[in-house]
Amino acid sequence: MLIVKKFGGTSVANKERIFNVAKRCIEDYKEGHDVIVVLSAMGDSTDELIEKAKDINPNPSKRELDMLLTTGEQISVSLMAMAMGALGVPAISLNAAQVAMHTTSSYGNARLKRIDSERIRNELDARKIVIVTGFQGVNKFEDLTTLGRGGSDTTAVALAAALHADKCEIFTDVEGVYTADPRKIEKAKKLNEITYDEMLELATLGAQVLHNRSVEMAKKYGVTLVVRSSLNSNEGTIVKEEVDVESMLISGVAADKNTARISVIGVSNEPGIAFKIFNSLAKHNINVDIILQSVGRDGTKDISFTVEKENLKEAVDVLESGKAVKCQKIETDEKVAKVSIVGAGMNSNAGIAAKMFEALYNVGVNIHMISTSEIRVTVLIDQDNVDIATKAVHAAFLED
Amino acid sequence: MLIVKKFGGTSVANKERIFNVAKRCIEDYKEGHDVIVVLSAMGDSTDELIEKAKDINPNPSKRELDMLLTTGEQISVSLMAMAMGALGVPAISLNAAQVAMHTTSSYGNARLKRIDSERIRNELDARKIVIVTGFQGVNKFEDLTTLGRGGSDTTAVALAAALHADKCEIFTDVEGVYTADPRKIEKAKKLNEITYDEMLELATLGAQVLHNRSVEMAKKYGVTLVVRSSLNSNEGTIVKEEVDVESMLISGVAADKNTARISVIGVSNEPGIAFKIFNSLAKHNINVDIILQSVGRDGTKDISFTVEKENLKEAVDVLESGKAVKCQKIETDEKVAKVSIVGAGMNSNAGIAAKMFEALYNVGVNIHMISTSEIRVTVLIDQDNVDIATKAVHAAFLED
Repeated sequence: MLIVKKFGGTSVANKERIFNVAKRCIEDYKEGHDVIVVLSAMGDSTDELIEKAKDINPNPSKRELDMLLTTGEQISVSLMAMAMGALGVPAISLNAAQVAMHTTSSYGNARLKRIDSERIRNELDARKIVIVTGFQGVNKFEDLTTLGRGGSDTTAVALAAALHADKCEIFTDVEGVYTADPRKIEKAKKLNEITYDEMLELATLGAQVLHNRSVEMAKKYGVTLVVRSSLNSNEGTIVKEEVDVESMLISGVAADKNTARISVIGVSNEPGIAFKIFNSLAKHNINVDIILQSVGRDGTKDISFTVEKENLKEAVDVLESGKAVKCQKIETDEKVAKVSIVGAGMNSNAGIAAKMFEALYNVGVNIHMISTSEIRVTVLIDQDNVDIATKAVHAAFLED
Repeated sequence: MLIVKKFGGTSVANKERIFNVAKRCIEDYKEGHDVIVVLSAMGDSTDELIEKAKDINPNPSKRELDMLLTTGEQISVSLMAMAMGALGVPAISLNAAQVAMHTTSSYGNARLKRIDSERIRNELDARKIVIVTGFQGVNKFEDLTTLGRGGSDTTAVALAAALHADKCEIFTDVEGVYTADPRKIEKAKKLNEITYDEMLELATLGAQVLHNRSVEMAKKYGVTLVVRSSLNSNEGTIVKEEVDVESMLISGVAADKNTARISVIGVSNEPGIAFKIFNSLAKHNINVDIILQSVGRDGTKDISFTVEKENLKEAVDVLESGKAVKCQKIETDEKVAKVSIVGAGMNSNAGIAAKMFEALYNVGVNIHMISTSEIRVTVLIDQDNVDIATKAVHAAFLED
């Protein structure tokens, strides 16, 4: 088997942890598998480098910041190779340029375009463990780039895809993917399996186990993902295209407080209004989530939608600049949250949404907005109600 | 003009010093010159990285150690680019792979083979200051290598040669090249000019201002070197092919305690003996310096020579193993030192050596061995006599 294993910064934060990871990888190697290890920078070292940069230039060039930050992963991969060497196993570290991991040019948030697999194949054929810098790439100018948030997960999945790995294991500080946030919902259960689509909805909805881009890529190239604990050898959660038909209708409940509602009140009821609003927001790279449109009694329309909290001010500015559309007033509400249920079995079962609404009604939670997809139902509620709502919905669907 | 400027680790050890170097480079840039800056790793960071490595593996792979160490210069060049950016001057940092600086494969002590100048030329044409990582290169496997001791000087000279720079300035913590070590000889004077050959003899003889490899390369490609202080804007010492005929017969006096004498006593007086001895030492990479051969009264020969102190034990082992040559006994002496005078004008003046011996005789210093070249006279004396000997010779030749 060819296995790609990804470990985050906390897993390689010091000598002891580096050796733990090394031993874990060597187990697979000694069973005869080919092993590729993807690492993030040690502990807080990326933050420390950013601090150093900002001390010299509060607004550093993104190209130079990437040049600086990419040293972090190069340090962890070379030290890991030395640790494996100390344990008597041949290993080699490779940075993004050596692999090479080709990306788009945009520094700080580059996208992977293509991976050369020849060097890695040769090193694997020589029976070495190959240790690759996560989070980074090279662009067409041969400049170093970074992949942005969750970048190391993406590196691991991309390598697994390029080399047709049998699986890609993402090691984390939780046991796997849960039916709800286990810190909030006592009865949350670990899932054995989940589909890419469910995982995508959960990632989007704030479950924060895997980054969306890595799941999208895994789905696109059919890479079997395993989310598991770096602290023990429990089996974790497998993310793949299809799961057992026997599996639950609903895989999980996710809550997301990073949302705000905007209501554009009293726009004229004519074609193209919605287009104008959302087009003007899109031009400012503001993503819009749940959308609700209603016709008022005076013949005007109200359009409500949600955005991420950090985009609220800019969205309102865009709308108030008047370039988007004329309206009577703009209302905003930051004290809202989304609660969602996700399940691949949902679309063959009509009563799911009703059952969710009933569970919320029973605990007195008022629903502001509703959005559905084939495998998801999301409601917008008051932020204060998030915990009680999540608990009630989890109990209705996921507890015996 | 195209100017290459090289700064060592202490010159970029903290934010304040980084800005000092940045300002210094910007002065030249604003006068319209093209500027390439070569930097070492910040302060003690290379030593800190080595310590980290040895903590994980006391005997780390040299390839992985180079992978680790090269992050040091990448950090200093990116921070320098940010500092210049903060001062409003366009700058770009490039690592060895981006340049590219092609080297031999030998990790930890690679030799530069070829430099691609296209990327640097393009960035200079775009009126950017180009900041290059010193001390490092890439080999034919696209692996990172380091150049060994004095490597950043070599990087700077090689770039100056490849780009036909008008001069290559090496910034250091002294004012330039002196007629003797100014910490030892109070009346030592700074030289305005010195030839490559003299500088090579002085570097070899322990003056430690410039690394030999960088001077050899400067001579080979005719790069004008300037050794000057990073603390002020005094003019420093120019190292070039020929200096004023008016210049002094003797450029400097150098002392070197890193030497040991070996005497091979009583070898048979037949052809090939010297070859056998020095060939066997060369096979162990032991460099031999002053050689003296004498015929003894019983028809056997004595052969004496000096090696660097750290090679003494191995040299004796090689000789005693009997594979080299048969002899009556081997004597060694570590308590010796070399004192040398160097001067391009020496070979046209017959009395120089005699004047040196007279100066030593006057202060009661006994000479064990003598070696001369066209521009150098070296004597081996007791180590305890080094200071008095250096002072006497300096007074005889270099003081009014």
